[in-house]
Amino acid sequence: MYRGIHEECGVFGIRSNKITNLASVVYHALYALQHRGQESCGIAINDGETIVGHKDLGLVSDVFTRDVLEKLPEGHMAIGHCRYCTAEEETVANSQPLIIKHVKGNMAVAFNGGLTNASKLREELELNGAIFHTTSDVEVIAYVITKERLSAPSIEEAISRAMLKIEGAYSLAIMTQQKLIAVRDPLGFRPLCIGKIGEDYVIASESCALDSIGAQFIKDVRPGEIIVIDDKGMRSIDKHCNDGKKASCVFEYIYFARPDSVIDGSCVHTARQRAGAFLALEHPVQADVVIGVPDSGLDAALGYSKQSGIPYDVGFIKNRYIGRTFIEPFKSQRESALRIKLNTISSTVRNKRVILIDDSIVRGTTSKRIVKLLRDAGATEVHMRVSSPPFLYPCFFGTDLGSRENLIAANHTVEEIAKIIGVDSLGFLGVDNVTKLADNPAYSFCTACYTGNYPLPISDKQKGENKDEESK
Amino acid sequence: MYRGIHEECGVFGIRSNKITNLASVVYHALYALQHRGQESCGIAINDGETIVGHKDLGLVSDVFTRDVLEKLPEGHMAIGHCRYCTAEEETVANSQPLIIKHVKGNMAVAFNGGLTNASKLREELELNGAIFHTTSDVEVIAYVITKERLSAPSIEEAISRAMLKIEGAYSLAIMTQQKLIAVRDPLGFRPLCIGKIGEDYVIASESCALDSIGAQFIKDVRPGEIIVIDDKGMRSIDKHCNDGKKASCVFEYIYFARPDSVIDGSCVHTARQRAGAFLALEHPVQADVVIGVPDSGLDAALGYSKQSGIPYDVGFIKNRYIGRTFIEPFKSQRESALRIKLNTISSTVRNKRVILIDDSIVRGTTSKRIVKLLRDAGATEVHMRVSSPPFLYPCFFGTDLGSRENLIAANHTVEEIAKIIGVDSLGFLGVDNVTKLADNPAYSFCTACYTGNYPLPISDKQKGENKDEESK
Amino acid sequence: MYRGIHEECGVFGIRSNKITNLASVVYHALYALQHRGQESCGIAINDGETIVGHKDLGLVSDVFTRDVLEKLPEGHMAIGHCRYCTAEEETVANSQPLIIKHVKGNMAVAFNGGLTNASKLREELELNGAIFHTTSDVEVIAYVITKERLSAPSIEEAISRAMLKIEGAYSLAIMTQQKLIAVRDPLGFRPLCIGKIGEDYVIASESCALDSIGAQFIKDVRPGEIIVIDDKGMRSIDKHCNDGKKASCVFEYIYFARPDSVIDGSCVHTARQRAGAFLALEHPVQADVVIGVPDSGLDAALGYSKQSGIPYDVGFIKNRYIGRTFIEPFKSQRESALRIKLNTISSTVRNKRVILIDDSIVRGTTSKRIVKLLRDAGATEVHMRVSSPPFLYPCFFGTDLGSRENLIAANHTVEEIAKIIGVDSLGFLGVDNVTKLADNPAYSFCTACYTGNYPLPISDKQKGENKDEESK
Amino acid sequence: MYRGIHEECGVFGIRSNKITNLASVVYHALYALQHRGQESCGIAINDGETIVGHKDLGLVSDVFTRDVLEKLPEGHMAIGHCRYCTAEEETVANSQPLIIKHVKGNMAVAFNGGLTNASKLREELELNGAIFHTTSDVEVIAYVITKERLSAPSIEEAISRAMLKIEGAYSLAIMTQQKLIAVRDPLGFRPLCIGKIGEDYVIASESCALDSIGAQFIKDVRPGEIIVIDDKGMRSIDKHCNDGKKASCVFEYIYFARPDSVIDGSCVHTARQRAGAFLALEHPVQADVVIGVPDSGLDAALGYSKQSGIPYDVGFIKNRYIGRTFIEPFKSQRESALRIKLNTISSTVRNKRVILIDDSIVRGTTSKRIVKLLRDAGATEVHMRVSSPPFLYPCFFGTDLGSRENLIAANHTVEEIAKIIGVDSLGFLGVDNVTKLADNPAYSFCTACYTGNYPLPISDKQKGENKDEESK
Repeated sequence: MYRGIHEECGVFGIRSNKITNLASVVYHALYALQHRGQESCGIAINDGETIVGHKDLGLVSDVFTRDVLEKLPEGHMAIGHCRYCTAEEETVANSQPLIIKHVKGNMAVAFNGGLTNASKLREELELNGAIFHTTSDVEVIAYVITKERLSAPSIEEAISRAMLKIEGAYSLAIMTQQKLIAVRDPLGFRPLCIGKIGEDYVIASESCALDSIGAQFIKDVRPGEIIVIDDKGMRSIDKHCNDGKKASCVFEYIYFARPDSVIDGSCVHTARQRAGAFLALEHPVQADVVIGVPDSGLDAALGYSKQSGIPYDVGFIKNRYIGRTFIEPFKSQRESALRIKLNTISSTVRNKRVILIDDSIVRGTTSKRIVKLLRDAGATEVHMRVSSPPFLYPCFFGTDLGSRENLIAANHTVEEIAKIIGVDSLGFLGVDNVTKLADNPAYSFCTACYTGNYPLPISDKQKGENKDEESK
Repeated sequence: MYRGIHEECGVFGIRSNKITNLASVVYHALYALQHRGQESCGIAINDGETIVGHKDLGLVSDVFTRDVLEKLPEGHMAIGHCRYCTAEEETVANSQPLIIKHVKGNMAVAFNGGLTNASKLREELELNGAIFHTTSDVEVIAYVITKERLSAPSIEEAISRAMLKIEGAYSLAIMTQQKLIAVRDPLGFRPLCIGKIGEDYVIASESCALDSIGAQFIKDVRPGEIIVIDDKGMRSIDKHCNDGKKASCVFEYIYFARPDSVIDGSCVHTARQRAGAFLALEHPVQADVVIGVPDSGLDAALGYSKQSGIPYDVGFIKNRYIGRTFIEPFKSQRESALRIKLNTISSTVRNKRVILIDDSIVRGTTSKRIVKLLRDAGATEVHMRVSSPPFLYPCFFGTDLGSRENLIAANHTVEEIAKIIGVDSLGFLGVDNVTKLADNPAYSFCTACYTGNYPLPISDKQKGENKDEESK
Repeated sequence: MYRGIHEECGVFGIRSNKITNLASVVYHALYALQHRGQESCGIAINDGETIVGHKDLGLVSDVFTRDVLEKLPEGHMAIGHCRYCTAEEETVANSQPLIIKHVKGNMAVAFNGGLTNASKLREELELNGAIFHTTSDVEVIAYVITKERLSAPSIEEAISRAMLKIEGAYSLAIMTQQKLIAVRDPLGFRPLCIGKIGEDYVIASESCALDSIGAQFIKDVRPGEIIVIDDKGMRSIDKHCNDGKKASCVFEYIYFARPDSVIDGSCVHTARQRAGAFLALEHPVQADVVIGVPDSGLDAALGYSKQSGIPYDVGFIKNRYIGRTFIEPFKSQRESALRIKLNTISSTVRNKRVILIDDSIVRGTTSKRIVKLLRDAGATEVHMRVSSPPFLYPCFFGTDLGSRENLIAANHTVEEIAKIIGVDSLGFLGVDNVTKLADNPAYSFCTACYTGNYPLPISDKQKGENKDEESK
Repeated sequence: MYRGIHEECGVFGIRSNKITNLASVVYHALYALQHRGQESCGIAINDGETIVGHKDLGLVSDVFTRDVLEKLPEGHMAIGHCRYCTAEEETVANSQPLIIKHVKGNMAVAFNGGLTNASKLREELELNGAIFHTTSDVEVIAYVITKERLSAPSIEEAISRAMLKIEGAYSLAIMTQQKLIAVRDPLGFRPLCIGKIGEDYVIASESCALDSIGAQFIKDVRPGEIIVIDDKGMRSIDKHCNDGKKASCVFEYIYFARPDSVIDGSCVHTARQRAGAFLALEHPVQADVVIGVPDSGLDAALGYSKQSGIPYDVGFIKNRYIGRTFIEPFKSQRESALRIKLNTISSTVRNKRVILIDDSIVRGTTSKRIVKLLRDAGATEVHMRVSSPPFLYPCFFGTDLGSRENLIAANHTVEEIAKIIGVDSLGFLGVDNVTKLADNPAYSFCTACYTGNYPLPISDKQKGENKDEESK
């Protein structure tokens, strides 16, 4: 009944030893994390006495106008969040950070991930009289921590105990009266790192947010690690760390993260180029030019070009001004809706055999239109190469792939897909090569969406819930 | 620590037997109740499956634009709320209706009043692991009901049990999956009435909201009564009714309510005229004209005029376009800030002995300025008559009077006040006459703010909290 | 083809000897004049070098947010304008003040009135190559002045010569590089007055704007007078003054102006009470109570009551929060749309014979609904008295009455109207008494809309244009 | 005194044979032209009777919300405009299209360019009594055409005669009651082309706008050509065409235009790659990687890489969410403001000798910061190559380069600049190679900003005006 919200999000936190204007720092960090979620955003500030916040639907620059920023108080700690969500969940109530009051004081929580036992935990809490304001997993997490806090000697101990109860993917930035805490689940599904700017510590989903505010990268939060930052500095609680087992989301490298971020020691841009190079090895073809679908296909296209020796060129221009309030195009031209966002550079593809690189194919409809754009512009052959394996299974760890019915690869062979989208040949990255995208060969990825091998048990009920949603 | 929000608010609810556009009905009803709270407003709609809502800071017409109304779904039940709050509590989170999810389903609550044991209830809940999202009493009420619901056979029984725990002033509109419920506390501090439009039942804080949507007045909710409206119609649970004891807020008649409303059988406009007539009897004076401070002093001025035979006239024009975003006036003219809102009609007062009627004096600063306007316009004498007794004690039942330090009457004699505000004579309504403002002579009012006789026990702690606030 | 815009508007101007923040002064003055036009508003500021301005559709408080006011420069002169317009003319381009650049420098103009020869002047100018950006009369006036300025030795001389060409109603606030100029047409259709605040002179449509900023009233601009304010002070050019002839719009007293304004020596509030008293003498009737339609009918109701001895009471409450973005009411309740704005106080009218006072009847539809509200509330008889004569002819001097077809009195006898709107008796103010509303018995009004006697020649073409519009 | 506004802008027009929803077509076309001007935009629609429009400051998606688009009428012709302007000229009045009324009817004009004799023409018109509402050149053009129209037999003849008077750069979309007209100045400074969608003709500054709405490219408007589109189709007036002389702005290829546009037969993307290739030939250097400054430096970087054989890679990530309301970064980190917009991909440049390609250096401050980013990221050498020659002279043809004082190249040698911005070597594109960027070797460019050889006479007065501005 209560399926947790499985979104891709960005979290950020900062703790200073003095009261200062932290709102603008969080603002700029959220700017850098905006690609992780454009539907809503929020900032919570601890001014030493209480925690106040502002959150709303919209981009960081729309929600945090100068007026809004000026009304936020100065503080010594702050956390921020930006969020992707499906349309029906798009309400201010579900926005983060979540700010709550409990018996030991105030707490604010920003969350990226997806719990696999949220429904079960919710039920237990409700049977004890709990009320929920939202449908989000973060409220469940806050409740479980609060419950543990009643008996635990400290907030970090409460969090540590709560980690025995909550299951799934979670990267958290938690702010209490005195402490800023970073938490990453034991399998490390989502990224989380620590930085330092002057004497102030910061927490961020990706290192690009550290760069944007001029902070130095200190370390990645280890899977299972709790990092506590207070007036005595930073310390680590590693009792949940299990360095032998890890299940990082490979799609962070292939699609989600910004290319300039470095996650768990590997540069995202490099990983994408590597994916392109593997594609060139797995699926070679004679052609005149390699192009990528902007923006996330460009790096892999460059990698393919370098490995194969076929020249890289720019095949598409993406309109940089497309906002959210996008209006339906000219009647009778609806099929060319894509053209408003994406236009081919004819001189690049006319009379050429083109290798087209994209990061993924979900439903196939967009790919089909892109291929048509190339044909219309005069490409003689179109060979598509995809820098991820085919999606076959739903994700329960924070990525919204939609239902299996909609996954073209779950219902068609590669040859069928090639035919449907109209390409001369089609090749996906092999699952084996996925595991080689990181610099560290021992790094292990979650490949559940490609293989169905979930790194955590998924109950039939949860699968069923997902099915129910599908059948809507 | 957690002092409940003591606001004056308006609540509304409607239940239909079919799915229809209820948002626009609630919208128009809230328009009619706007005088009860201008800081925030909200609408929650039950579409048969779930409860969705929208709320924000601002006037009804600002928050509910056409776009927002169109996005709200159709439904068979809806409740609405508009709210006054002090500046520091002015956040969206504290807006209502409160929508929550609990073990038996969804619930939305709209509340007008103030609890006297909110802190105590909060503490008990928190010690059991509860988390709070807001600082408002309505969340405490929702929690207590939810707790009772775990063992109670029905929501109305849960509410009935909760009424044994919550103390203070509360008029509630509660919406569950199937039922719309109106609840008024056993002393009936705040008004609440029932109406009918076609086959649909409605709940409203004041009868003027019924008129505005064309509904027929059915009855006032009796103090202590629970009215349940479901697909079988309307029924009453009266086990908390205690008709011998009642403590309605007299300030509803004197100031809060709209003159066209009829509360517990008495017309507000008539009650105000009556207050003016009593003033004429208690504090007669020779004069040429009787004027009122717009808008709430006008009715009493008319009553004074009729009783005394001294002609009534219009002394002031109030600017009808003053919005909330009011900008500071011309430098060096700050003392005349009032003039932008209020201007004297010189021909009414020039060379005249003026009787000036207002509904209350809180700090005295506004009265002082108004009197100066009259003197500047040529009034030879100004005799002020106030249609309520002097405020001496804080209110714990939903009216924000501020602290005792700020109440001019708590620190000065009537003669001193007259001198401070610059009038030739000053008279307040006698407490004895307050009790005669309603049509029904047996009707009993809460007069705590005048007499200090609180109809419910107020703990020292609560008084202290109020004091702490004062001493800030 | 080019019918000038005939709107009711408010104008304001201020000239200081030093550079200061004038935007907030104009802002507050326009607030006080907001009742003269709610569709658009604007402020133009002369910062000593150039004239910059801001104008937009909306109320003063909506258009001039703090951000907008802060961006406006300081200056030594400024003018402002608020404007009523019909829907089709509601564009930013038609908003005022008009700011133009011509061969001798910059000029800003704010205008209230209506020209009778605008089409003719426009044609002449266009045949000489002129281009127009707007459809408003003010642009024609600016053009004519500019043309004269080419040969005239000063701007005031250019204005004086232009007054020989433009015909109709015009009250103007004109700002050049160094001078602030007030101009009123020779028949004085629309009001205009001069005030002083410290050393600074101000111009305003009504004296209530002077009061609102703490300025002292100096004088009314005489019909035909040009007032020039520059660094040498204020001086008058009276060559167009013709004190024997005057045609002030009586509707300024009856409806347009604010009751606290004093126009040409007469208090508006007093004039309205006087209209009520004349009504009592002209159309006496036995009744129990006199009520007025808020807001403009209240003063006349009080006048009727005093003259007749029948008690005055408050019959209606008008909702003070009705904004412009008004949303359609509950389906099937459309006839009660009026109830959202206006509600009866039943206790005032139930079982009573009611005298209902309103300022005018145009189409009759609103009156009919108001009468129904009273009947529904239990009034046994309704006797309507109207504080103006019946409208029979269109106005060409700045009042938008709509076409003759829509004027109920142009097509029906008083008895027929009474039947249509459902009253027991109906009486209009006699035309003879209209002329007695001002304090000064020699004061002469334009009564064209009642009598068809236009104080200026109206060409058949213009009447035809008006007809064309009607027949749309 | 009246220096015309010299902006870079985008123009668009469409003419249909039936009344239809053209607003959304213009909207999408302006989206595609948004890169040509982000400060303001507007749409004017001819509904068969009159021309109505909407324009405001802001991006196309901000100005034309769904509400605004829905209020615009259907029509058979429409033109649109987007505009860049300097801050002081940023007013709604200066926005386009300009809509005017003249003796022969209505006209709307959208303009891209800059007149060299605007001041002179303005003066002449003013001495004849003209008034101006704006400071823009387009109003001068409209006036001159209107004057000619008084005696000319048709609008196209009036335009043709006006072209003898106006001097400078102008690409125009003009809409009258019946005709849509495209005009390009005799030297063809700015691009302008014609397309067709179904039976409807369109005019656009760049071909990318045609692609975006699914229109077919028909032809470029020839320098000096007037294209008239009416219900008889399209026809050309070529009496001002002088195919032997041409002075197209080379900066359209290097920077302004979108890479997917084809201007006068040459693809912009190809021209930029060609510029990069010339740079490789002119300024070779040993290095490990070639990177470009996003977005306009990327194509040239690719061209440099291909010519030199040094690998191309992605060196920077540009934040795609930076809006206009950009807020000042974290105190004490102000020097890193650039980082919020631009971040290096360290893995691309660490321990590498980097060739950095940008399209231009104006003041040098941004270049200096970008170089520092590379050094901080570990680049061992930075060799900057610029795909245009150094700017030495102001532009009078629609490009706002600022004053000579600010042009670093006007005041420093290449060696000095290299030192200032901190690079190991620096090379600009040679002026000789500029002329080879187009596909057609006979194509001739305006190179005035590099050489001072203006293709049209520039009066000393105008140079002086420019100087005055500089010395402010």
